[in-house]
Amino acid sequence: MALVNKNYLKLSGSYLFSEIARRINQFKANNPEADIIRLGIGDVTLPLAPAVVEAMHKGVEEMGSAATFRGYGPEQGYQFLIEKIIQNDFIPRGVNLSVDEVFVSDGAKSDTANFQELFGVDNIMAVTDPVYPVYVDSNVMAGRTGKFNSEKGQYEKLVYLPCKEENGMKPSLPKTRVDMIYLCFPNNPTGMTLTKEELKEWVEYARENRSILLFDAAYEAFIREDGVPHSIFEIEGAREVAVEFRSFSKTAGFTGTRCAYTIIPKEVKVYDSTGEAHSLNQLWLRRQTTKFNGASYPVQAGASAVFSEEGKQQVKENIDYYMENARIIREGLQAEGYTVFGGVNAPYIWMKTPNKMGSWEFFDKLMQEAHVVGTPGAGFGANGEGYFRLTAFGTRENTLKAIERIRKGIQA
Amino acid sequence: MALVNKNYLKLSGSYLFSEIARRINQFKANNPEADIIRLGIGDVTLPLAPAVVEAMHKGVEEMGSAATFRGYGPEQGYQFLIEKIIQNDFIPRGVNLSVDEVFVSDGAKSDTANFQELFGVDNIMAVTDPVYPVYVDSNVMAGRTGKFNSEKGQYEKLVYLPCKEENGMKPSLPKTRVDMIYLCFPNNPTGMTLTKEELKEWVEYARENRSILLFDAAYEAFIREDGVPHSIFEIEGAREVAVEFRSFSKTAGFTGTRCAYTIIPKEVKVYDSTGEAHSLNQLWLRRQTTKFNGASYPVQAGASAVFSEEGKQQVKENIDYYMENARIIREGLQAEGYTVFGGVNAPYIWMKTPNKMGSWEFFDKLMQEAHVVGTPGAGFGANGEGYFRLTAFGTRENTLKAIERIRKGIQA
Repeated sequence: MALVNKNYLKLSGSYLFSEIARRINQFKANNPEADIIRLGIGDVTLPLAPAVVEAMHKGVEEMGSAATFRGYGPEQGYQFLIEKIIQNDFIPRGVNLSVDEVFVSDGAKSDTANFQELFGVDNIMAVTDPVYPVYVDSNVMAGRTGKFNSEKGQYEKLVYLPCKEENGMKPSLPKTRVDMIYLCFPNNPTGMTLTKEELKEWVEYARENRSILLFDAAYEAFIREDGVPHSIFEIEGAREVAVEFRSFSKTAGFTGTRCAYTIIPKEVKVYDSTGEAHSLNQLWLRRQTTKFNGASYPVQAGASAVFSEEGKQQVKENIDYYMENARIIREGLQAEGYTVFGGVNAPYIWMKTPNKMGSWEFFDKLMQEAHVVGTPGAGFGANGEGYFRLTAFGTRENTLKAIERIRKGIQA
Repeated sequence: MALVNKNYLKLSGSYLFSEIARRINQFKANNPEADIIRLGIGDVTLPLAPAVVEAMHKGVEEMGSAATFRGYGPEQGYQFLIEKIIQNDFIPRGVNLSVDEVFVSDGAKSDTANFQELFGVDNIMAVTDPVYPVYVDSNVMAGRTGKFNSEKGQYEKLVYLPCKEENGMKPSLPKTRVDMIYLCFPNNPTGMTLTKEELKEWVEYARENRSILLFDAAYEAFIREDGVPHSIFEIEGAREVAVEFRSFSKTAGFTGTRCAYTIIPKEVKVYDSTGEAHSLNQLWLRRQTTKFNGASYPVQAGASAVFSEEGKQQVKENIDYYMENARIIREGLQAEGYTVFGGVNAPYIWMKTPNKMGSWEFFDKLMQEAHVVGTPGAGFGANGEGYFRLTAFGTRENTLKAIERIRKGIQA
């Protein structure tokens, strides 16, 4: 008799964004006329940059001719793309990487979800609270979290690092020893960042405890202020304890095109029960060559054009556009008296719900009264309750309209 | 201290195709002039069909315009593609599927490797021997196989189903109870198939034991003879016990473009320790929505064109081309006195090495003397020793040249 992976049965409720989609569909069925504005799921709206489109056409063309056709590529990605990534995203920040420290994939969701496979199930892991649900759910499935305590809204074995108004949405170092730490900065969902000095404390903690920092930098391109690190590898010593996840999804509008990359320095080590060290870089290489067959060639060709002169300019304009949306949302909400976080160095605005309203209740209210969809903070963890996430990825028109509706419409 | 997933340390040697690549690179470094013909990794050589190229261009164009841009798609794939898959690959064979029983992905390697996650680690699994290494290695990583016994060349807890000359390369039902059974027909590496009656025995076994059949049908498009089932769902009762993996890789030359799909009927169930049944379809949906973000949109648009009238004709011509290569290899080797299997309903030819030569020895010999690269049978399992795999995916010119060189060149 085939038995189920019992850890799957520990998952609490549906995946956040599926639940949101379900509620929207239900509302639309009852209100077919409603003009819903979605500032919920962090999905982009601007089309691919012309330079990317051109490069993808060229990639497709190559696939249609015997002379230039490409079959299986390297599972870890094409060198032409990896070299551009290093040259543009890391060298200018003083971070040197070798080609075999960069792994291209079909998405940072896949990478952040799959990476935990390399670790023993008995490792203690820490996440910020609120947190991007994929880190937690992928570890639940692997059996690393223990059971869900529905009273607390937390998993028993997980160490939660609260990010609250009191600490400026910045996690404190864990009080007990942890082995794996997920950090995402600029943060999803709070939109907040850490300074170099703050990040340095995490690197030092990890070095002292031989822990691994799983650093999600998917939103680094949205950083506007100086002094905010774009990569964890700007911090001295991080090469020994950190892995970094990057994505073209938000930076270059690849949410439907699918391309991302993960940086694993050769120095990062995990240990077996005899204390022998094993290279995470080699383990991930083995994982990817066994379970993955590389990202689509025309997609990698397109991603490569993000780093051409035209591509860089076009992508920058798109990011500027979204960050202007962020300003509109942030300032619009502030003018209405809401308390808001983020939106300065990130495309996310994290607002307090009015009158301590529950975040799913606010979700329903905002959808019903203003026809605006956001993401309930509770979906990101117990400490997200009482908060609500809006994203800057809508069109300008919809962003302005949404703020106008919120201004007029919500009976808080 | 972060601990490693100790199961990774049980993996025996490198992933087969990485080891082959290493040996080729070494040979090329020493023999830069050698004109190497690769009939090793099952990679295609014909370009994408014009209908696919056209559809991908259109998909890319849509991504470049705000009006038609697509961000995150459904994790399980676009309905436009799923409907065509059902209409073309299943309905004509009397197999009815609903849209939510088909999951589109970036590849059958990913799907066959990831699917085992849904099962408990204590399930007993069976594989044919020889076998496509991904089934085994992904389960080793998950801790389902026990340790590698290097004397036997087998994992301790795995049940191996030998496919040998004596049984016509067809596995017998396991003598002890197993919970998960990987079957691949037309088979990689042997190129052999099962009849409807033979497959029926497996379905009956699975129904009696509440086991799950993980059926890899990646090569079904290469079946030429009548009476050979293309889908396991042609067998009565299979909907309750089987999952089927399909791919565009070999069928339509998508090895570098990346698209595949997996069929999970709603009736297929696995059980928890209380005996309660859980739907594999729902578990996979949860897995994919949590850990995957869908296949690239332009890729899915291209895959959809495989089912257009032009696409079907063009893809059929490509398959005919490869199957003519298969005939050339099979008959060429037979004429030289080699014993060969497969190549009739599959793009793989499974040959016995001459004089019981070891298969890695034959690999080196063939590479060094004929500059032809194949795949050593031992790489597919202990019972693959003494065999060698050649693929029909080369160009006609190279296929003819390779057979000519083998005819002339090998001092067996």
